[in-house]
Amino acid sequence: MKNKLLGPPLDTDELENERLGIPTALAVFSSDCISSSAYATEEILRVLVIAVGLAAFSLVVPITVAMLVVLFFLILSYRETIKEYPTAGGAYMVTRDNFGLLPAQVAGVSLLTDYVLTVAVSTAAGTAALTSAVAALRPYSVEISLFFIAIIALGNLKGVRESGKIFAIPTYFFIGIMGVLLLVGFYKMGVGHLAPQAVNKKGMLKLGSIGNGFAYGAGLYVILHAFASGGAAVTGVEAISNGVTAFKKPEWKNARVTLIIMGVTLGVLFLGLSILSTRVHSVPFDSGTPTVISQIAKQVFGAGLFGNLLYFGLQAGTMLILVLAANTSFADFPRLASFHAGDNFMPKQLTKRGHRLVFSNGIIALAIAAAVLVVATGAKVDRLIPLYAIGVFTSFTLSQAGMAKHHITRKEPGWRRGLFVNATGAVLSLIVDVIIAVTKFTHGAWVIIVLVPVMVLLLVRLNRSYESESDQLEHDVHTAVTAPVLRRHVVLVLTARLDQSTARAVQYARTLVPDEMRAVHIAWDRDGAAHLAEEWSRLGLTRVPLELVDCPDRRVARATLEYVASELADGQTEVTVVLPHRVYRHAWQRFLHDRTGEEIAEAMSGLEHANVTVIPYRIGDAAPTGAAPEVAAMRRQD
Amino acid sequence: MKNKLLGPPLDTDELENERLGIPTALAVFSSDCISSSAYATEEILRVLVIAVGLAAFSLVVPITVAMLVVLFFLILSYRETIKEYPTAGGAYMVTRDNFGLLPAQVAGVSLLTDYVLTVAVSTAAGTAALTSAVAALRPYSVEISLFFIAIIALGNLKGVRESGKIFAIPTYFFIGIMGVLLLVGFYKMGVGHLAPQAVNKKGMLKLGSIGNGFAYGAGLYVILHAFASGGAAVTGVEAISNGVTAFKKPEWKNARVTLIIMGVTLGVLFLGLSILSTRVHSVPFDSGTPTVISQIAKQVFGAGLFGNLLYFGLQAGTMLILVLAANTSFADFPRLASFHAGDNFMPKQLTKRGHRLVFSNGIIALAIAAAVLVVATGAKVDRLIPLYAIGVFTSFTLSQAGMAKHHITRKEPGWRRGLFVNATGAVLSLIVDVIIAVTKFTHGAWVIIVLVPVMVLLLVRLNRSYESESDQLEHDVHTAVTAPVLRRHVVLVLTARLDQSTARAVQYARTLVPDEMRAVHIAWDRDGAAHLAEEWSRLGLTRVPLELVDCPDRRVARATLEYVASELADGQTEVTVVLPHRVYRHAWQRFLHDRTGEEIAEAMSGLEHANVTVIPYRIGDAAPTGAAPEVAAMRRQD
Repeated sequence: MKNKLLGPPLDTDELENERLGIPTALAVFSSDCISSSAYATEEILRVLVIAVGLAAFSLVVPITVAMLVVLFFLILSYRETIKEYPTAGGAYMVTRDNFGLLPAQVAGVSLLTDYVLTVAVSTAAGTAALTSAVAALRPYSVEISLFFIAIIALGNLKGVRESGKIFAIPTYFFIGIMGVLLLVGFYKMGVGHLAPQAVNKKGMLKLGSIGNGFAYGAGLYVILHAFASGGAAVTGVEAISNGVTAFKKPEWKNARVTLIIMGVTLGVLFLGLSILSTRVHSVPFDSGTPTVISQIAKQVFGAGLFGNLLYFGLQAGTMLILVLAANTSFADFPRLASFHAGDNFMPKQLTKRGHRLVFSNGIIALAIAAAVLVVATGAKVDRLIPLYAIGVFTSFTLSQAGMAKHHITRKEPGWRRGLFVNATGAVLSLIVDVIIAVTKFTHGAWVIIVLVPVMVLLLVRLNRSYESESDQLEHDVHTAVTAPVLRRHVVLVLTARLDQSTARAVQYARTLVPDEMRAVHIAWDRDGAAHLAEEWSRLGLTRVPLELVDCPDRRVARATLEYVASELADGQTEVTVVLPHRVYRHAWQRFLHDRTGEEIAEAMSGLEHANVTVIPYRIGDAAPTGAAPEVAAMRRQD
Repeated sequence: MKNKLLGPPLDTDELENERLGIPTALAVFSSDCISSSAYATEEILRVLVIAVGLAAFSLVVPITVAMLVVLFFLILSYRETIKEYPTAGGAYMVTRDNFGLLPAQVAGVSLLTDYVLTVAVSTAAGTAALTSAVAALRPYSVEISLFFIAIIALGNLKGVRESGKIFAIPTYFFIGIMGVLLLVGFYKMGVGHLAPQAVNKKGMLKLGSIGNGFAYGAGLYVILHAFASGGAAVTGVEAISNGVTAFKKPEWKNARVTLIIMGVTLGVLFLGLSILSTRVHSVPFDSGTPTVISQIAKQVFGAGLFGNLLYFGLQAGTMLILVLAANTSFADFPRLASFHAGDNFMPKQLTKRGHRLVFSNGIIALAIAAAVLVVATGAKVDRLIPLYAIGVFTSFTLSQAGMAKHHITRKEPGWRRGLFVNATGAVLSLIVDVIIAVTKFTHGAWVIIVLVPVMVLLLVRLNRSYESESDQLEHDVHTAVTAPVLRRHVVLVLTARLDQSTARAVQYARTLVPDEMRAVHIAWDRDGAAHLAEEWSRLGLTRVPLELVDCPDRRVARATLEYVASELADGQTEVTVVLPHRVYRHAWQRFLHDRTGEEIAEAMSGLEHANVTVIPYRIGDAAPTGAAPEVAAMRRQD
C-alpha cells in the first residue's frame, strides 16, 4: 500500500540535495513571499473601507509604503543572517545560538504556528482565486481548500525531488502575468482609460464614512489596524535563510542576490496593486470573493476575448502560486519540528525520516492542523489573517536580536554596520508585532498570544521528561552491562491446554538450561484443569512438571502475575515466562479467540526480571517449514 | 473501574442458581410473554383500520381468538417439551438432539434475531407507555429507549442475583392493574357507560373504507396481515422451557403449572383488551403515541382524580413490565449464544463467563444490536413488528417438529398423544410463520428472511475454521511435546543504543546457555552505528559480540526479520530474539517514542522458531527493586 501510494523506499544515501541556481532558487523559495501580494492589498482595504469609506483609497498606498519600509529592513537584516549562518540560518538556530534553548523554543513555536497559518491562508486564498473566476464553485470553498492541502501533503510525503522544475513554471507565470496586469493597468491609468468600478454592489462591504472613524479620535488606530493586516505581506521573507545550503556555490552570495530579487518583486507587485486599487475602487466582498485582485484584473483587462483570457490566466496563476506557497511550509515545518525534536523538545518521531526520506510525521501533523483551521474558519482568508503574522514577527524579532548579539559578541569586520541593520530589523519587527497583537487581539490574535506560551510550556515539560528518562537510561551503563547474572533462572511454560502450540512452547523451553523449569496452568475451570493434569502425567515429561494454580475468580492474567511475582520475591531470580502464541493467517481469525495471552504479556511487562518469551505457532499452514513462506511474502511486497 | 461499576469479581463456585417457586418463577419467566398484550391489539388494529375502517372493530376479536388458538397449542406443545427435556429444553437443544447441528443453527439464529427484536420492541413499547402518559417526553423516544437498554445491560453485566424479588413486583403490579382495567371496563360496558371515543383526531391513522380492501378481493389478505401482526403476542412462550432447572423440585411439574398460568394470563389480557378496543374505538396513532392501551385506559378510568391515578399506574406498570421483558432476552440471548459457541459455531469468547460470572460478551453484543435497531427505526414499535415473530415461529416449528420426531423415535408411554400435540404445534407454527413471511415481506420481514440464512452460512463457515484449527492443533500432540530439541540455539540481543535497558537485556541473555550469542544492531544511521560499535568494543563483553547489519532504507523491522530468517534457514535452529522494552509509567509517554520494538515483535511472530523475549525496563522508578511496586499497586486496586 505504502509502496503504491508513495513509490519505493529511498536509501539514506540518496539524501543529497540538488543545488539550485538563482532562477530556480527564486522559484523554490519565493512563492510564499511573493504570493502574499495576492491578498495583502485586499486585507488592508478590508479594514479601511469599513472605517473610512472611500477615503480608504487615499490611505492604502501610504500604508503599503510603510510596510515596504519594514520589508526593506528585513531584507537587509536577512542578508546579514545569510552571511553569518550560511548552513542553518533559521530563527530557531540563530536564537538558540545566541540566546539559548528556551528563547529558541519561543521563536520555533511562533514560526511553527505561522507555517500552519501559511498553509491555511494560502490554500484559502488560492481557492478564492479559483472561485472568483468560477462562481459555481463558491459553495465548495472548504472542500477545495482541503483537497489542495491533501495533494500538497501527499506530494511532500512522496518527497518532491524534481521540485525546481515544478516550481519554476507557476512562479514565473504568476510574476509575468502580474507584470502584464501592472503594465496594462498603469498604461490605461496614464492615458485615462481606467475608470473606477461601481461600488456598493450586493455582497460588497458597506462603506463607512470618514466621520465614523475620525470623529472619535480613532484615526491612528484604524491606520495601525490596516497596517497590521498588511503585515501578512512580508511573511515568507525568512524562507531563503533556511535553505542557503541548497544554493550553488558560492552559496551565501547567490542566496543574497536571490533575496534581493525576491524583495524587489514583492515590493513592485504589492505597491502596484495597491496603486491600481485606488483607481479601480475595488472593495472587498464580505464573502471574500470576487477578490480585490480579481476586480482589478476585470477592470484593467476589460471584457473582450483577449481580456478574458488574460483575466483567467491571472486567476489561474494566482491560484497556483498560492498553492505553491503552502508547499513551502510543508518543506519548512517538518524540518523545524525535527530541530525541536532533536533538542528533545518535541516527540522523537519527528526526527525520523520516513519511507521516502522526508519527515513524514511532521508533514502529517501540519496537514491535519491546517485542515482543522480551514474547516474552523470556513476557508475564509479574512478570518485567518488576524491569527497570521504575529508568529512570524515574533520569530523575526528574536532572530534579528540574536543577530545583533552575534555582532556584538564576535566583532568581526563590519560588525557595526551589521549591528545597526539587525538592531533596526529587530526593533521594527517588534513594533509591527505589538501593533498586530494589539489591533487584532479581539479579532482572533489572542488565540496565538495564548497558544504560543502554552505550547512552549508543554515543550519544556516534554523536554524535562526526555532528559530525566535519558539520565536514567544512560546512568552507569558500563556497570549494568557487565553486572553479574542473577543467582537463579526459572522457566515457566504457561499452558492453557495440551495442543501443538503448547508442544512447541515445551520444545523451545527444553532448549534452555535453567535452574528450575515447570509448566504452569492457571485453573479457572476445575474440570478442564484436572483433565489437563491427567493428560500431562501420561506424557512423562520429567523435566517439565505441571503445576496447577487455583484461580476461582477467572482473572487469569492477574493470577499469572501474582504467581510470577512470588517467584521473583527473593530479588535474585530471573524468570522466563514461555508463552505459546497462535498466529493466524487472517486478521478476522484473531477476533475469534480471546486475548488472554496478550493480556498476560502486557501485565508482565510491569515486573522487572519477568521476561516473556513468545513462541509463535502458525495456524493454517500445511507444512511447518519455518521461515520460508513469510519471507517470501515479504519479498513479494516489493 | 470494572470493580466500581460492576462490584467485586465472583468466584466460579458462586454459580449456583436460586431455586424458584411457582409465583416467583411466573414473575421471572413470563414478563416477555405477558407484556406482549400491551401492544398486540394495537398492531392488529393498525393493519385493520387503514384497510377497512370502522369494520376493524368487528374483526379484531376474531383475529385475537385465532391467535389464542395458536397459543393454546403452543402451550400444550411446550408442556411436552418441558417433560421430555427438563434440563435444557430450548429450541436449539431440542433441534440439535433430534435433527443435528445444522438445523439447530437455523433454530438458534432465528431465536437470536428474535431476542434482539424483543429487546428493541419491548423497550420501544415501554417508552411509548411512558410518552403516552407524559407527552413532553415524546421527542426523546430514542434516547429513552437507549437508556432502558443501557441500564438493563448494565444490570445483567452485574449479574442480577436477586432477580426473583425484582421481577415479582412489576409483573404482579401489571397483572393486577390490568385486571382492574378489564373489570372496570367490562362493568362499564355491561351497564352501558363505556362510550366510544372520538375518532379521526389529529395524528390518528386515517380510517379506510370497507370498499378499499374488500372490493379488490383482498379481504383475506388483510385479515392474514392483521393476524400476522398479532403473532407478536405469543413470543416469549418458550422462555419457561429454557429454564426448567431453575424451578423448585419437582422441576418439570412446577414448570408446567407455571406455563399454563402464564398462557391463561396472556390469553385473558389480550382478549379482554381486544374486546374493550371494539367498544372504545381506539385507533392507533401514526407516531405510536398515545397507545391503544392508553386510549382504552383513559376512556375506562375516566377523568377524575382516582381515574387519573389508575391511568398513570397502568402506564407505569406497562412500562416496567416491558422493560422486564427486554431483560428476559438479556438472560436468554447470551446463554443461547454460548451454546452455539460451545458447539464451535460462534466465537469462543461467548462461552466465557466474565467478571461477575455472566456471559458478558453476549450481553454486550445484544445491547449493541438492539440499540442499532432502536436508532434505525426511531424507537417505533410498528416499524419493528414486521421483523418480529418470524424468527420465533421458525424456532417453534423446528423445536416442535423435533419433539414429534422424539416421540416417534422413543415411543415412550403416551407418545401418540404427544406426537399429535407436537405435530399440530409444528404445523400451526409453520403456517403462522409463512403467513407472517408473506404478508409482512415488503414491510421489512425480508430483512430477517435474508439475514437468517446468511447468518447460518457464516456460522457454518466459522465452524469449519474452528474445526480445521483444532484438527491441526490437536494432531499428534504427544509426539510434538516429546520431540527432540533443535540442534542449534542462537540468542540475538537487539540493540538500538547502549543504555540501561540494553544492559538489562544483555544481563538476561547472559543467563542463557545457547550455542551462539551476539548483539545485533540494525544500522539505519551509519554515524550512530559506528559510535555504538566503538562503545561496545570498550565494554569487553567477549561472550556477546556486536554485529552491525546495514539497513540503508531505514526499515528496521524488515531488516531484523530478514536477518533472523537467514539464521533459521537451516531448519535446525531455534532463535531467541532478546528485545529490550522500555516500560513507561504514563500512557502519554509511550506516544513520545517510536513503536519499532512492537513492530519487530509482530513481524517476528510470522517466523516459526523465532522466539521473541521481551525484557522490560521500567522508566521513572527510582529503585529497580523488581516486583514490589507493581504487585502492591495491583493489590491496592481491590
